Amino acid sequence: MSFVEIPKNSPFTYENLPYGVFSTGCETRHRIGVAVGAHVLDLSKVSHLFNGPQLASHQTVFSEPTLNAFMALSRGAWKEARETIITLLNVDNPTLRDDQKLRSSALVPLEDVTMHLPASIGDYTDFYSSIEHATNVGTMFRGPENALMPNWKHLPVGYHGRASSVVVSGTPIRRPNGQTRPKDAEPPVFGPCKLMDFELEMAFFVGGQTNDLGSPIKMEDAEDHIFGMVLMNDWSARDIQKWEYVPLGPFLGKNMGTSISPWVVTMEALAPFQVESPEQNPKPLPYLCHADPYSFDIHLTAAIQGEGMDQPAVVCKTNLKYLYWSMKQQLVHHSITGCNMRPGDLLASGTISGPTEDSFGSMLELCWKGTKTVPLGGDETRKFLKDGDLVVMSGSCEKDGIRIGFGEVTGKVLPAHQL
Amino acid sequence: MSFVEIPKNSPFTYENLPYGVFSTGCETRHRIGVAVGAHVLDLSKVSHLFNGPQLASHQTVFSEPTLNAFMALSRGAWKEARETIITLLNVDNPTLRDDQKLRSSALVPLEDVTMHLPASIGDYTDFYSSIEHATNVGTMFRGPENALMPNWKHLPVGYHGRASSVVVSGTPIRRPNGQTRPKDAEPPVFGPCKLMDFELEMAFFVGGQTNDLGSPIKMEDAEDHIFGMVLMNDWSARDIQKWEYVPLGPFLGKNMGTSISPWVVTMEALAPFQVESPEQNPKPLPYLCHADPYSFDIHLTAAIQGEGMDQPAVVCKTNLKYLYWSMKQQLVHHSITGCNMRPGDLLASGTISGPTEDSFGSMLELCWKGTKTVPLGGDETRKFLKDGDLVVMSGSCEKDGIRIGFGEVTGKVLPAHQL
Repeated sequence: MSFVEIPKNSPFTYENLPYGVFSTGCETRHRIGVAVGAHVLDLSKVSHLFNGPQLASHQTVFSEPTLNAFMALSRGAWKEARETIITLLNVDNPTLRDDQKLRSSALVPLEDVTMHLPASIGDYTDFYSSIEHATNVGTMFRGPENALMPNWKHLPVGYHGRASSVVVSGTPIRRPNGQTRPKDAEPPVFGPCKLMDFELEMAFFVGGQTNDLGSPIKMEDAEDHIFGMVLMNDWSARDIQKWEYVPLGPFLGKNMGTSISPWVVTMEALAPFQVESPEQNPKPLPYLCHADPYSFDIHLTAAIQGEGMDQPAVVCKTNLKYLYWSMKQQLVHHSITGCNMRPGDLLASGTISGPTEDSFGSMLELCWKGTKTVPLGGDETRKFLKDGDLVVMSGSCEKDGIRIGFGEVTGKVLPAHQL
Repeated sequence: MSFVEIPKNSPFTYENLPYGVFSTGCETRHRIGVAVGAHVLDLSKVSHLFNGPQLASHQTVFSEPTLNAFMALSRGAWKEARETIITLLNVDNPTLRDDQKLRSSALVPLEDVTMHLPASIGDYTDFYSSIEHATNVGTMFRGPENALMPNWKHLPVGYHGRASSVVVSGTPIRRPNGQTRPKDAEPPVFGPCKLMDFELEMAFFVGGQTNDLGSPIKMEDAEDHIFGMVLMNDWSARDIQKWEYVPLGPFLGKNMGTSISPWVVTMEALAPFQVESPEQNPKPLPYLCHADPYSFDIHLTAAIQGEGMDQPAVVCKTNLKYLYWSMKQQLVHHSITGCNMRPGDLLASGTISGPTEDSFGSMLELCWKGTKTVPLGGDETRKFLKDGDLVVMSGSCEKDGIRIGFGEVTGKVLPAHQL
């Protein structure tokens, strides 16, 4: 138990302790904090208290403006940091509890902070690891017989995304202008995207020492390179994407922005929520196999609040555990040809859809390519997103009285620029 | 004329003055230099001499370990820097010429330097802008009737690449292991890539202030965001690429490494070599149109030196001017959906093939998917690359007695790791 009060329903319990980068009005430098209840513990103010064998000579990582240097340390160091923070916040520990000066400078009310990207993201990769999502999209565009491509069950399909346009929760997203071809027999046209969509995803930050170019990360070492997770909304312009993506994949249909939640929940915090992955048949090649469970039971929702609405209406309830490919498999596959993976790289799941219609993680699937309307309550319905729509995604785990929350990733759709 | 001697055939003439990042054995910090003849002018040693209106308050950019901060300045600042360097090196200017102490510290023999990546590359994008290359590849895999996809002539097709695996010339490239499916009716297999290839490309570095997310770069401003160019070898594992790339594009088939030449030749140096772009029919949408010529007459070669060979054998002679889409079109298209383009981002052309068989920019095309052998002289022939092959690409412009060289981008294929 912590001496810091944890409000009921707070995502940031004593068992959670996620890391983020924040600033305040009176201290504008970006610094690392840990969310606990309705407060943020400013690690730059308590870095001198990290005196364990792994961290005593690395205290400066807690004074950095991003988490990259901390992520670059070892899994042992991450564990030691967590243990130190748990000890420091414990109700029986007077070190911070009774040091009024340190306590008032190091514990900042959550309502006073502005959150920033947790890391400088070197490269961002998006996978396509939900079999339900891949099957839905494949069925819509190629029919149920050819829904999954021949490679899908043999490797975690993925593509490189754009790192510069990854933004922190709360950043408004401008509806893009772009090139589309509404009628196959006519030339393409230019104008605002008409099929603006969200994709409910999760992503993990890579940690640990960068592997040398040419030297893959082995499956037995994969866990040492997975630092923690965030929620992600991978905004998509479906009409732009459809026209551009053959043969080299999604490009500008994704570049208007990719939003992530600001608090990185560590794999240590998530350990109690490990569950078996779905069975993989056919069995993947040996380099992709791991025996231990490395899926996580994380409840996820996506909601839309239109401009005239009082509150967001949930349109999707899904779960990370539905993913066919695990994060370890994604990471090992990504580096198998020798790709060097750097601390701060972001690897995303792809849209997470479940087996039922209310668990589909994108409007494309929820409105089944525009053939259905999605009710938002009252007279409000949607097929794709309207200007002014606020999209709110949240995620949490709960088991045996332990609750771990990710908080939210939000973003509002702004009208397209007149070009 | 410069007081620094320019050896005959040096790529680094007084009209060139490319920027790079280097270190030396006795001074290991990375710093910015300009290549001139057989020397490097160490800009960190002469930064105090940049006293023009644009640079007097920005001299610190020349003491940075990468070119990013200099790239982030304006095109006016780049021009002023070039003029200052031209003046400083002029045979009639005593400032550096007669200051023996400064001269011996600031002019470093080229043979003593180790080159590094010129910039920290935020994002790397690869286009597909050669109509001959796209047609060749399309013909091989889909037949001549469907060689070009319907979108190809309407927009510069491109995809996000991996920034972490971009390396400087000279870095050996490890043949990757990976997943392939040699026989369509059988399951995929794991092992070393059997169809290792090069792609002869060029790339440009983005400069200028980052555009805000959601606000595209306009065509009239595009030139202010193009800093300079390098040679690129976009190594490719054709068998891995073929199995993985549907539907989300090339991924691991490219991640074993992408090599660039170390010296960034500025657009100011290249200006005399501007030529008309190929005619575009149909005319692109207005946002993609520009009236001025923005192609460049740059002769390019690719050569292979096998382990038993005395010298590299040229297998491809091509030219940047063949590209269908200009760099301005690539940049404007890339940002049209609001993608923020940061100084140090790298945008590559895609394989540059010309109209004749000896001008194809990859082994895939030169050996026509394995149906022909490519002679290297003597008994040596190739279809794809062998272990130990050194691939050497070079590029240069020549006109009216002015010569501008890019130098070389080289890389040797190392045997695959035994996994």
